Amino acid sequence: MKKLNIGMVGYGFMGRTHSNAFLKVANFFDLPYQPVLKALCARNAERAKAFAANWGYASVETDWRKLVVSPDIDLIDIASPNDTHMEIAVAAAKAGKMVMCEKPLGRNAAESEQMVQAVEEAGVLNSVWYNYRRVPAVTLAKHLVDDGRLGRIFHYRAKFLQDWTISSDLPQGGEGLWRLDVNVAGSGVTGDLLAHCIDTAMWLNGPIDEVSAMTETFIKSRKHNLTGKVEPVGIDDASAFLGRFRNGALATFEATRYARGHKALYTLEINGENASIMWDLHDLHRLQYFDHRDEGVLRGWRSIHISDRDHPYMSAWWVPGLQIGYEHTFIHQAADFLRAAGDGKSAAPSFREALQTDYVTDAVLQSAANRNWVKVGP
Amino acid sequence: MKKLNIGMVGYGFMGRTHSNAFLKVANFFDLPYQPVLKALCARNAERAKAFAANWGYASVETDWRKLVVSPDIDLIDIASPNDTHMEIAVAAAKAGKMVMCEKPLGRNAAESEQMVQAVEEAGVLNSVWYNYRRVPAVTLAKHLVDDGRLGRIFHYRAKFLQDWTISSDLPQGGEGLWRLDVNVAGSGVTGDLLAHCIDTAMWLNGPIDEVSAMTETFIKSRKHNLTGKVEPVGIDDASAFLGRFRNGALATFEATRYARGHKALYTLEINGENASIMWDLHDLHRLQYFDHRDEGVLRGWRSIHISDRDHPYMSAWWVPGLQIGYEHTFIHQAADFLRAAGDGKSAAPSFREALQTDYVTDAVLQSAANRNWVKVGP
Amino acid sequence: MKKLNIGMVGYGFMGRTHSNAFLKVANFFDLPYQPVLKALCARNAERAKAFAANWGYASVETDWRKLVVSPDIDLIDIASPNDTHMEIAVAAAKAGKMVMCEKPLGRNAAESEQMVQAVEEAGVLNSVWYNYRRVPAVTLAKHLVDDGRLGRIFHYRAKFLQDWTISSDLPQGGEGLWRLDVNVAGSGVTGDLLAHCIDTAMWLNGPIDEVSAMTETFIKSRKHNLTGKVEPVGIDDASAFLGRFRNGALATFEATRYARGHKALYTLEINGENASIMWDLHDLHRLQYFDHRDEGVLRGWRSIHISDRDHPYMSAWWVPGLQIGYEHTFIHQAADFLRAAGDGKSAAPSFREALQTDYVTDAVLQSAANRNWVKVGP
Amino acid sequence: MKKLNIGMVGYGFMGRTHSNAFLKVANFFDLPYQPVLKALCARNAERAKAFAANWGYASVETDWRKLVVSPDIDLIDIASPNDTHMEIAVAAAKAGKMVMCEKPLGRNAAESEQMVQAVEEAGVLNSVWYNYRRVPAVTLAKHLVDDGRLGRIFHYRAKFLQDWTISSDLPQGGEGLWRLDVNVAGSGVTGDLLAHCIDTAMWLNGPIDEVSAMTETFIKSRKHNLTGKVEPVGIDDASAFLGRFRNGALATFEATRYARGHKALYTLEINGENASIMWDLHDLHRLQYFDHRDEGVLRGWRSIHISDRDHPYMSAWWVPGLQIGYEHTFIHQAADFLRAAGDGKSAAPSFREALQTDYVTDAVLQSAANRNWVKVGP
Repeated sequence: MKKLNIGMVGYGFMGRTHSNAFLKVANFFDLPYQPVLKALCARNAERAKAFAANWGYASVETDWRKLVVSPDIDLIDIASPNDTHMEIAVAAAKAGKMVMCEKPLGRNAAESEQMVQAVEEAGVLNSVWYNYRRVPAVTLAKHLVDDGRLGRIFHYRAKFLQDWTISSDLPQGGEGLWRLDVNVAGSGVTGDLLAHCIDTAMWLNGPIDEVSAMTETFIKSRKHNLTGKVEPVGIDDASAFLGRFRNGALATFEATRYARGHKALYTLEINGENASIMWDLHDLHRLQYFDHRDEGVLRGWRSIHISDRDHPYMSAWWVPGLQIGYEHTFIHQAADFLRAAGDGKSAAPSFREALQTDYVTDAVLQSAANRNWVKVGP
Repeated sequence: MKKLNIGMVGYGFMGRTHSNAFLKVANFFDLPYQPVLKALCARNAERAKAFAANWGYASVETDWRKLVVSPDIDLIDIASPNDTHMEIAVAAAKAGKMVMCEKPLGRNAAESEQMVQAVEEAGVLNSVWYNYRRVPAVTLAKHLVDDGRLGRIFHYRAKFLQDWTISSDLPQGGEGLWRLDVNVAGSGVTGDLLAHCIDTAMWLNGPIDEVSAMTETFIKSRKHNLTGKVEPVGIDDASAFLGRFRNGALATFEATRYARGHKALYTLEINGENASIMWDLHDLHRLQYFDHRDEGVLRGWRSIHISDRDHPYMSAWWVPGLQIGYEHTFIHQAADFLRAAGDGKSAAPSFREALQTDYVTDAVLQSAANRNWVKVGP
Repeated sequence: MKKLNIGMVGYGFMGRTHSNAFLKVANFFDLPYQPVLKALCARNAERAKAFAANWGYASVETDWRKLVVSPDIDLIDIASPNDTHMEIAVAAAKAGKMVMCEKPLGRNAAESEQMVQAVEEAGVLNSVWYNYRRVPAVTLAKHLVDDGRLGRIFHYRAKFLQDWTISSDLPQGGEGLWRLDVNVAGSGVTGDLLAHCIDTAMWLNGPIDEVSAMTETFIKSRKHNLTGKVEPVGIDDASAFLGRFRNGALATFEATRYARGHKALYTLEINGENASIMWDLHDLHRLQYFDHRDEGVLRGWRSIHISDRDHPYMSAWWVPGLQIGYEHTFIHQAADFLRAAGDGKSAAPSFREALQTDYVTDAVLQSAANRNWVKVGP
Repeated sequence: MKKLNIGMVGYGFMGRTHSNAFLKVANFFDLPYQPVLKALCARNAERAKAFAANWGYASVETDWRKLVVSPDIDLIDIASPNDTHMEIAVAAAKAGKMVMCEKPLGRNAAESEQMVQAVEEAGVLNSVWYNYRRVPAVTLAKHLVDDGRLGRIFHYRAKFLQDWTISSDLPQGGEGLWRLDVNVAGSGVTGDLLAHCIDTAMWLNGPIDEVSAMTETFIKSRKHNLTGKVEPVGIDDASAFLGRFRNGALATFEATRYARGHKALYTLEINGENASIMWDLHDLHRLQYFDHRDEGVLRGWRSIHISDRDHPYMSAWWVPGLQIGYEHTFIHQAADFLRAAGDGKSAAPSFREALQTDYVTDAVLQSAANRNWVKVGP
């Protein structure tokens, strides 16, 4: 098994999920590559050292510009805040490294286009961590849709509901809070949460052609942790849109951080002529399935406990009935990336695929600003 | 449509459910008989009058001995406390009346045997209000079992959980509280709640041959409302048993009024070789069904919303998706009784069938007292 | 108790629910008026007679114009198709009758305005059967909102999902199918289903100021049962909108008859600063409630089984744990109407209140047609 | 951080869960010891090598007698079939090693007593992998009980339902199927599944004093994989008991491998005077909690999503809303063992504590055989 040396940028929430994925994946999956945690890169040297020690990184770097040109490194994995994605990805691609990037790709489609151009010109393998595609239940949904089980699709609806920013005492910006700083994040829930919903939706149901959107910032100003001053909030706290898929299905999407009682309730539902599917992240190990072709008096929503060996990814894990959790979605993506790399291919979603999501989020923000329907696209 | 004059005994909780059933049934079902609320009988004349006025009874009687011999009456419906069932039923049968009786039949099998003998000797139609058989979901379960969908049955488990008697301040006996007075009720939860579970179980899965039981009275003495004194509590607060059905299935049953958080949670589950069924009274309009013959990756418990026109009894009601409730089970039993009566037959469960449940509850109480396995039967 | 003579127009689905309500209400509620089923009016004399016989109407009429002027009648209840509402209501008001009308009020706000004007000029009691306000769980939600339990409201979302018109073989128009005929119904799901969502929403959360909507007709032509020809379908099969409430909350609404697996899934959710509420019609006897002020480690969505005596309307029914169903919402509205009438008042929603819903549905249809944001209002 | 060298015996299902636990625990928890996968021991050398390579064990051994005396090893972890537990544990203790043992301790209490004696005489740290205590939801339940939130306990019920042995084609004995061989396993579901229920129950609710049990072997003979012949089945396929806890609570327990539709449905419920708790393994990241002290109209079962930082063990993992799974329970136990070892203590349950569970399972089997109530104890 060849080794694949990983240079990780970032030690936050996503630095942890990615590190765990690469550390664990080979214990559970047969792979052409053995990932090696070679170097951890972050600005704060002390915290970087502690993180590297905890996860077993062989070395620490504080300047990503050095990391991306290091001959020891095969793959640059970008887990740092959104405002760093473009520069690092472009430089890594130019240095001929494989590049994985936490979602969203750039802060907007313009940045993302540069990233796509860079990896394609360099011809390097690339992928974006839209990890929810690899929830086994969601992957099974994809199989069902692709098999034509649902028939003509009429409706696709998705929501991503959280409640962690309701308090007006919460500051914006700085360590752990950059998702509230529009300059760093690019947008609020549109890029953070809605992007997940959109990526899964287009994977399952094809392109979205047009949207009419509404956004809201409920708390207009917050103390900024970097300046120490109360400043206007630039992000969207809530974002919703109506839209149309190319296949004629209607789209209803919503994301918010102001839905009291929901921590990370990403839900999706697809209604087809013959069958329907529902899934939610709070019980990610279940898929709800309704098939109208079932015998009349026995039709009902089936709650499928996705823990059998023939469910996607599940033969790698435990025995039927025993559930996996959130972190496994990253392990699955690492496995798929490494397998595809063995064949010289990029695992989906590539940068180019992920760019399509940014076109939708850009259209959502533009529609909300201009109060009109907006066509999605470059 | 012939009229069927009803003499109702009792104006408590069950007096209401029965009255409502006979008042409404002809609006929803095609019947050979039109039930007429002819006379209401209860000891307290004033309250009896008010009840009769509310429900439209044509007359009021305070002595059931007069009622049962009244030439105006075709059917005596016994909705009074358990200690009155035997005497009234025997007298009504002797007077040649049809007899319906609220469950349990007698306070024990010895009483019930006399009631069975009376109706059979008189040759009068008779039925016991084990109303949960007529929950559409439960009736559908019966159809599935009878069709052999489940295959060999391995397990039958049932529980009836309540929490209304936990407070030690609650008195025993007297108006509205006779269920806590062992002399009136015969037993506690065994005859009140477990009897329902047993009736449904034997209907769905055949006879129970033997039991090993445990009962408990958590609060040993309570003020008695009739004497005004604190007296020992004679009823069982909780009752559970293990048992074996004649078909080889294992039985696990439990009833209690000390399960905090459950108001009337009657649940049943049947596990067969090929399929399983679950139902609970708190969502009585749903049936849970699992079929192992479903395609492997799509196997799951189906939550069937029992509101389609082809579900049992449901063509009589509204449109799909709109649920019915508790009171409808009595209306269905009234409909079945009147239809069967049109054919000169007794609707199930007849007194004789209901007697089998009393044999089981007697065995449960005996087993709990003697701490041994007890064979069920006369 | 004074008698209140009812003249019912219509014998369809709603004719049944209203008749049942008036027939049953006095058995369960103390009322200043005793409703009397005096006359049933419908065009088809034979079917009208059968219906009248079944429900106990004293007489039958085939011309509503005669009914509304009959001195025997105190209250005209309009349960006929939407295209008849305005004419009958206006005539009944002019004749000085109390008027109750099935929802929606008119086929559009212009019709509804004439109906409002008529009842207000005549000074007659009036009410519209937006029955879902009287689901006890929904009424409890209203109490919680009015008590300020939720704090500032951020989000209100509602859906009404059905699947009964998916088959392209289903004809449009004619007996039992007039909801698919735009000339009779006025619109499709917007007036039929979304109107329910909007009525409840404005009752719970105040006025909606503006909307951006999308509608779709998935099956463009169907055989018309009256003409026998295949004709273009004029109704909307699906309708969704984004909007803003006057109190600043965001609105996301959707209704469809193309959501496979859902028969009548009306769901609503309100997210407030301190607490949130969810309810759905498929389990109408439950309310989901989350309170952030609960102790941290024990916070969770509470599934409240709305069957206790202190829950709205429930003291009239059975005992805790025993659920009621769909038809009871009409009984509750009848009770509220009769009680209010005893005080000389109209029970909510009055025609004027219901008109507000028509302003919203008109705005939805206009927005969908013109692809822009539309201000709600006359 | 001191290193702790682990000698693992067994490479089956439990060999995997334990290896994963020791490999990952230090990435998530601050520990006084760094576990090192030093040696893997199993009879089949080839498969042992492959397993060791996959998990990173430094060496491989095929004779556990050598392993337990190796000076390189600090801790012997026994993950091999039940019939090997006693001999290995006794030898390891005599060699002065810390000993961890997969549950159940021995095949019966007689074996377990010898194991207890060995570790206590040697004074070595010891613990049994009753992993379900470390499900965060179950640990939270323990906190609630210990805080007295539930008040007097009336009922404790538990079930462990599976369906994987229903087919009569399934052979008994041999690789992967030793749980069906009574000589290896000691018993069927009683020792395999019911033991889990009992361990948790006595941890949460104290000792069980007496039981009345019933067992069944539905399929009486199966082909044996080691002999190649059809042989009588010695294990119990299903096992249920009634019992009494020392604190007066009633016990109702059941385990089976013949409950179609359930893969690993371990459920428990505790009903106290003031509050109740429910949990199930198929949604292990949720706890159901009902508190009667909640405001009357808002009382309901709370579905608590156990993913907040202040939930037990959860500060080590991701962010609120993101669930963990089955394997984490082993990681938590490894963390607790290593922390306790840092203080020179054994993490619960020690061998002595686990022996109490064997006394109950022995009593269950004896009661079922003799059809009487049996006192629990040595």
